[in-house]
Amino acid sequence: MLSEIEKQVLEAISDTHNIPQVAYNLRKNGESVERKVDEDITIVTKNDKPGIDVFIKPGTKNKSVHIPVIISKAGINDVVYNSFDIGEDSDVLIVAGCGIHNPGNEGSQHDGIHDFKVHKNAHLKYTEKHYAQGEGKGKKILNPKTILEVYEGGFVEMELIQIKGVDFTNRETEVRLHEGARLIVTERLFTDYSQKAESHITIQLMGANSSAQIISRSVAKGKSEQIYYFNMIGKNKCAGHIQCDAIIMDEAKVTSIPAISAFHQDAQLIHEAAIGKISSEQLIKLMSLGLSEKEAEEKILEGFLK
Amino acid sequence: MLSEIEKQVLEAISDTHNIPQVAYNLRKNGESVERKVDEDITIVTKNDKPGIDVFIKPGTKNKSVHIPVIISKAGINDVVYNSFDIGEDSDVLIVAGCGIHNPGNEGSQHDGIHDFKVHKNAHLKYTEKHYAQGEGKGKKILNPKTILEVYEGGFVEMELIQIKGVDFTNRETEVRLHEGARLIVTERLFTDYSQKAESHITIQLMGANSSAQIISRSVAKGKSEQIYYFNMIGKNKCAGHIQCDAIIMDEAKVTSIPAISAFHQDAQLIHEAAIGKISSEQLIKLMSLGLSEKEAEEKILEGFLK
Repeated sequence: MLSEIEKQVLEAISDTHNIPQVAYNLRKNGESVERKVDEDITIVTKNDKPGIDVFIKPGTKNKSVHIPVIISKAGINDVVYNSFDIGEDSDVLIVAGCGIHNPGNEGSQHDGIHDFKVHKNAHLKYTEKHYAQGEGKGKKILNPKTILEVYEGGFVEMELIQIKGVDFTNRETEVRLHEGARLIVTERLFTDYSQKAESHITIQLMGANSSAQIISRSVAKGKSEQIYYFNMIGKNKCAGHIQCDAIIMDEAKVTSIPAISAFHQDAQLIHEAAIGKISSEQLIKLMSLGLSEKEAEEKILEGFLK
Repeated sequence: MLSEIEKQVLEAISDTHNIPQVAYNLRKNGESVERKVDEDITIVTKNDKPGIDVFIKPGTKNKSVHIPVIISKAGINDVVYNSFDIGEDSDVLIVAGCGIHNPGNEGSQHDGIHDFKVHKNAHLKYTEKHYAQGEGKGKKILNPKTILEVYEGGFVEMELIQIKGVDFTNRETEVRLHEGARLIVTERLFTDYSQKAESHITIQLMGANSSAQIISRSVAKGKSEQIYYFNMIGKNKCAGHIQCDAIIMDEAKVTSIPAISAFHQDAQLIHEAAIGKISSEQLIKLMSLGLSEKEAEEKILEGFLK
């Protein structure tokens, strides 16, 4: 059912974790083409707009849902709304991601709007990988929007990864953390050529003893441009930490604008950011081991984005 | 000529350095009231608007200019434009500052717009202290704007200090650094009650091997609010570092929004920020030495804002 190229693209955005995959929904060129469900994980097509509702039964453990999206045509403009209800005390992995192969000169775009309700004491691991390729001049555009409401004691780990080939992305992530809720966001972003990437992450620490951490790493090559807006707001006794590191190369441009706001005397917020080029010491060390400059550079970037 | 209260206010914003004070201009309630000049440092009243032009002869060393402003009446709205031309190879200290004693219920405001041209290889140390007091309900408002152009090899150290009593401040600082120019900005800000403080610092690293550092420390008590916008833009091979720390107490609010932008592959920019409350370990340590909680707190804040 999938062509060789489609399989390649799917492979690039897939993630192998050691958690059994029990539910599955594949969307291709704007339509659901394959689905698998389970007694604990149901997937229902939305009535009012394109997209699915995913329900994880309370107490579900050690199970995963994969919901890849692939686009293999030029001129596709796909918008999808997916909702996730993560039941109390469950512990699940959701692997999303979008891969585009654009063979033509017309643009292909996927906008995925994902909203999550993570109920009491649930643990969600969410991975989202973006990848694009294509022979033509058609732009590959991915605009994910992710909204998370994490209730008492909930714990969310998010991995947001843009591997390569995406011409334009505007990511928006909005999170509200209630009492004792925890969040760790890991962002990895790579741009090259004239690609542009923008990432907005807003985290509201609403509840007592909530905590959040953003770890963002990126590499900007060629004439690409990246801009980061992080906003962490402490409204209660809470702890927040933003850490962003960017490697800049060639004629690329990187801007990092992290805001921290303490609106409570027991809010503890920290931010660190660094933008700079590849460490020349690291380069020299790898080159002394026999690697060419280009190989050494690739090795360092690979390690940095791991 | 100065009343006892005026002398007190002047004292609060003065700064004793071990550099001979050779030139002086005192402004009181919107008028220049006293002036002293020197063969190397001249002060000329502007023709087109209120304010002075200060000229430092090239090669002037180990001399200082003090230009305090005091306001001792309610209902004063003083705007002043001061320009400074710091000659090549000179090494000078400029002490500005504004002290308000507002005895009434009408507001008193001072807006000082200072622009500096720091010529080749000159070293400028610039200190600006703000202080206000008063029995009435009249607001004490201070809005300084500082514009610096630092030419090849110039070095500027700025100290921007708001001691206490200022109800509202909006500080704006804009700096352009040319080849090999260096800047160190030290900001200290204290707010209490319903005071509001906003600080904008924009630094453009234009020239090769330019470098800049912002070290900002603040304490927000009561219901006061502080907001910081820092913006460091690297347009060449350069190094920039922003470090901001805030102590938050009571029902105060602090927001820190530092932006770093690397528009050159050899721009190296770093930012660190932390907002939190007084370290309880430090408090306990000082209290174990016999200090009351209040005394210990004051001791810590004093040390932090030093």
